[in-house]
Amino acid sequence: MSLLEELVDALRVLPGVGQKSAQRMAWHLLERQRAGGKRLAQVLDQAMQRIGHCQRCRTFTEETVCAICRSPSRDDDVLCVVETPADLTALESATGYRGRYFVLMGRLSPLDGRGPRELGLDVLDSRLGEGQVKELIIATSATVEGEATAHYLSQLARRHQVQPTRLAHGVPLGGELEYIDRGTLAHAFGSRQNVAP
Amino acid sequence: MSLLEELVDALRVLPGVGQKSAQRMAWHLLERQRAGGKRLAQVLDQAMQRIGHCQRCRTFTEETVCAICRSPSRDDDVLCVVETPADLTALESATGYRGRYFVLMGRLSPLDGRGPRELGLDVLDSRLGEGQVKELIIATSATVEGEATAHYLSQLARRHQVQPTRLAHGVPLGGELEYIDRGTLAHAFGSRQNVAP
Repeated sequence: MSLLEELVDALRVLPGVGQKSAQRMAWHLLERQRAGGKRLAQVLDQAMQRIGHCQRCRTFTEETVCAICRSPSRDDDVLCVVETPADLTALESATGYRGRYFVLMGRLSPLDGRGPRELGLDVLDSRLGEGQVKELIIATSATVEGEATAHYLSQLARRHQVQPTRLAHGVPLGGELEYIDRGTLAHAFGSRQNVAP
Repeated sequence: MSLLEELVDALRVLPGVGQKSAQRMAWHLLERQRAGGKRLAQVLDQAMQRIGHCQRCRTFTEETVCAICRSPSRDDDVLCVVETPADLTALESATGYRGRYFVLMGRLSPLDGRGPRELGLDVLDSRLGEGQVKELIIATSATVEGEATAHYLSQLARRHQVQPTRLAHGVPLGGELEYIDRGTLAHAFGSRQNVAP
């Protein structure tokens, strides 16, 4: 097997990359992005070796405890539960949230073997048991599995006398009513709010 | 910048990979494919350093001259010109061709700064000048630029008294006539062949 074939083969480990895309990627890197390819090899090697999970919130980090969990300037009273590190990043960049996070690294899906243990809900359980958290913001996605996970989480919060909250559903900004699905529209209508004077 | 952010950033060097896909790739590698990710890092590093162009046919290879050019069992009388190493691989796996190849690593596109020199046509010129090649099989793609390249190549061949040939156009196997574009259909009709008795 030539080195080029090995490269194409190795690239197929990436999600959604088949034989053709892998060939295109290899070709692109070799023809136009040698420096970028070298950098990718280096960073990838480092990342695979050094990135683990934060002991406290389970997000990806190369340290024992991640920067957000270590930060002394964040509010320990509020804990926001998200499914993935990408969701955490999205919330961090979109909101001014200053509390802590807990990352499930997935959502409840017993059929795929993802139960409470796999999502670290035992870790979350003892975290809530510490008594510091007053509000648990449940920011799982609005899918069936996300909602099931949210239900489970809210029960967990109540057991610890923690107030569970959920992100609001409604019309997305810029969304035109006629193109919004019925469920969302019904929800937004039912949750209508007073207009500030 | 955290190591994870660096990884996402480095992955964006791949063609067609934006911020979201890069995040998904990083997440996938870290969660499910650490071993594959490590192997990719290793192979990528090796490939970026060691893969260069074959001195004789210009395809990608980690040697000075590629395996096909070195092979003593291939026919020196026929030279097949393709645009990319992927085309070479496709022909190798689909046909029983036993001649040599010449890889343009692109096609004529003066507006993008890809002229005869960039495609190594000077190298091809001196190769044909050696007098060994009798037939030049022009296997560039059937696009406007591919055809322009083919035209240029056939003129080059004729200057060296080499017979240029071109892959046949026509109805693809399994193709239904009503769905084939008019140009292809007209070509296939005009190039109709006698049925063997």
